[in-house]
Amino acid sequence: MSRMTESTPDRPRRITIHDVARAAGVSLTTVSHALNDRGVLDPATRARVKRVAAELGYRPSVRAQRLQSGRANCIALLSSMPFAVAGGTSRLGFMMEVAAIAAEAAMGRGLGVVLVPPLEGAGGLLDTLDIDGAIVIEPIAGDPHIARLRERGVSIVSIGREPLTDTPVPCVDLQSADTARLLLAHLHGHGRRHIGLMIGAAPRQSYVETERAYREFTQAMGLPCHIVKAAEEHGEAAGADACAQLLAQMPALDALCAPVDAFAVGAMAHLQALGKHVPDDVLVVTRYDGIRARSAQPPITAVNLHLERVASLAVELLFAHLSGDRSRDVITGPAPELVVRASSTPGV
Amino acid sequence: MSRMTESTPDRPRRITIHDVARAAGVSLTTVSHALNDRGVLDPATRARVKRVAAELGYRPSVRAQRLQSGRANCIALLSSMPFAVAGGTSRLGFMMEVAAIAAEAAMGRGLGVVLVPPLEGAGGLLDTLDIDGAIVIEPIAGDPHIARLRERGVSIVSIGREPLTDTPVPCVDLQSADTARLLLAHLHGHGRRHIGLMIGAAPRQSYVETERAYREFTQAMGLPCHIVKAAEEHGEAAGADACAQLLAQMPALDALCAPVDAFAVGAMAHLQALGKHVPDDVLVVTRYDGIRARSAQPPITAVNLHLERVASLAVELLFAHLSGDRSRDVITGPAPELVVRASSTPGV
Repeated sequence: MSRMTESTPDRPRRITIHDVARAAGVSLTTVSHALNDRGVLDPATRARVKRVAAELGYRPSVRAQRLQSGRANCIALLSSMPFAVAGGTSRLGFMMEVAAIAAEAAMGRGLGVVLVPPLEGAGGLLDTLDIDGAIVIEPIAGDPHIARLRERGVSIVSIGREPLTDTPVPCVDLQSADTARLLLAHLHGHGRRHIGLMIGAAPRQSYVETERAYREFTQAMGLPCHIVKAAEEHGEAAGADACAQLLAQMPALDALCAPVDAFAVGAMAHLQALGKHVPDDVLVVTRYDGIRARSAQPPITAVNLHLERVASLAVELLFAHLSGDRSRDVITGPAPELVVRASSTPGV
Repeated sequence: MSRMTESTPDRPRRITIHDVARAAGVSLTTVSHALNDRGVLDPATRARVKRVAAELGYRPSVRAQRLQSGRANCIALLSSMPFAVAGGTSRLGFMMEVAAIAAEAAMGRGLGVVLVPPLEGAGGLLDTLDIDGAIVIEPIAGDPHIARLRERGVSIVSIGREPLTDTPVPCVDLQSADTARLLLAHLHGHGRRHIGLMIGAAPRQSYVETERAYREFTQAMGLPCHIVKAAEEHGEAAGADACAQLLAQMPALDALCAPVDAFAVGAMAHLQALGKHVPDDVLVVTRYDGIRARSAQPPITAVNLHLERVASLAVELLFAHLSGDRSRDVITGPAPELVVRASSTPGV
């Protein structure tokens, strides 16, 4: 027997369709037809069944309604970004910021948002969730979550384009090339000419675009080009290691562009441990304007990605696809804006 | 037809139990019994159905499995604390911190967490969600969400005791009296003798316990007792207004205990606008150690409620009740710890 109908001393037994049928002296099918205004029924019988149901306090089960409507009224929110990056010690990262806004936007459309944290077991959980759609944050190339959900026929949109494919899932584009150019121009505008780039090793669109923008920028400006890659799952420690590699390649490093906030914080700690001053010796900038960037010492210059708008657009796009409107596949997100902080404000 | 089985050019039609039955030349019931290892079947038929299902690439529908198991594999997380308090401009409040941890703990038990934001429409959404259980954050007396869920027979636990009832839902107690005593002793220890209290007007257990602890403390110490209440839905503005009321009652105010972070920030802004220095003229302390307390100017002394542990305990307690183990009804949460910041460190 289902847990939902279980009876306990302090929880009265749920009134079921069986109780209504018994009390009204009709079949289960008649009750169902009467309450759902379907089938061919004597109007008096229909009225009587409805009255009996009301008297008994019968409420249709959510699960039965769901089976009838074919809708789960739920979407999943997931990310393949490891918690070392997506969360951090306080766990208040990018994903949870998107979650808060997406939950609000989805509720306005009668949809709940189920969180699927980027941890081992996410795939297994996903397989057991009854969902209409999913929002995937910054998918990697060949994202396993997307593959699993596609196989089930679940509608998917991504925040950040699915990389390295000609047929990405519908997405809200994060404008990562623009973000990279904004950060690089800021560093260059402070007279820095030895700008290193640190990105993640996973195949994500934001890294692909950032690397391309950096190569174009350094070439156009006649600057040295040094790129290091760090493993997302090692978070701040990977940022520190990658910073050591970068300094070995580029001892005159005077500016660091590290779009992953965990990497930026780890790299900054490494620079400071070497006795280098941030920002006087090395400017440091990052992308996600979260609690890590804001609470670092010094606070780190970041980019306002307008996540509120991005998350709302993602819910809107998913809702359109769920409703059969497939006219839009890529929505251009809002233009990124620089949030200048002490880590790139030298000599103050 | 259900959206889940819809066919589109880039989404191959889902293989259903009907396809398996047709290809194997057996009835739907036989397929169901064969694949679920139920019923009385010829072993050769069972094997053949399984082989055909595998060849066709049949995967059972989550919804059908769910109906069979009677489990949704989902729990809801909800709060009646208005977003003005729970979220704030960055929306990274108490609820989302709990959500991140609860999602992680729940996933370890094969459960997804659905967010139900504290906004208009939460009740309606809740009625349509297929959930096994729910965690309610700091319920109010006669909490409408709890009433709705109880009626449906959904298992509920709360974070913070359900107030003003002898039969509260099972809960992780937030130890609000201890938190209040910790904050009051800290203010008193700095020599402050005109300590005002600002709490929310809603009937929540944390306010009930805080008010009682404050009355006992001021009486025991022979201090004046001045309590103001603010409306949660007005957030920081309500804190500023309540601060004005408090100053009218107690012009010599030299310390303010405002457990709601939004109120503390609003009150501090009001004090500063009057030319009063925080902390030299007035010490300010709050409860929730979130982004608001940390990023205020000056940063506000708060309490580490060990939300990570609290949220994990809540999931554990809910899981126990879902599994039929009702042996524990109230779990005492971890002891609160003071996090001293500039707002209560005078003369530095």
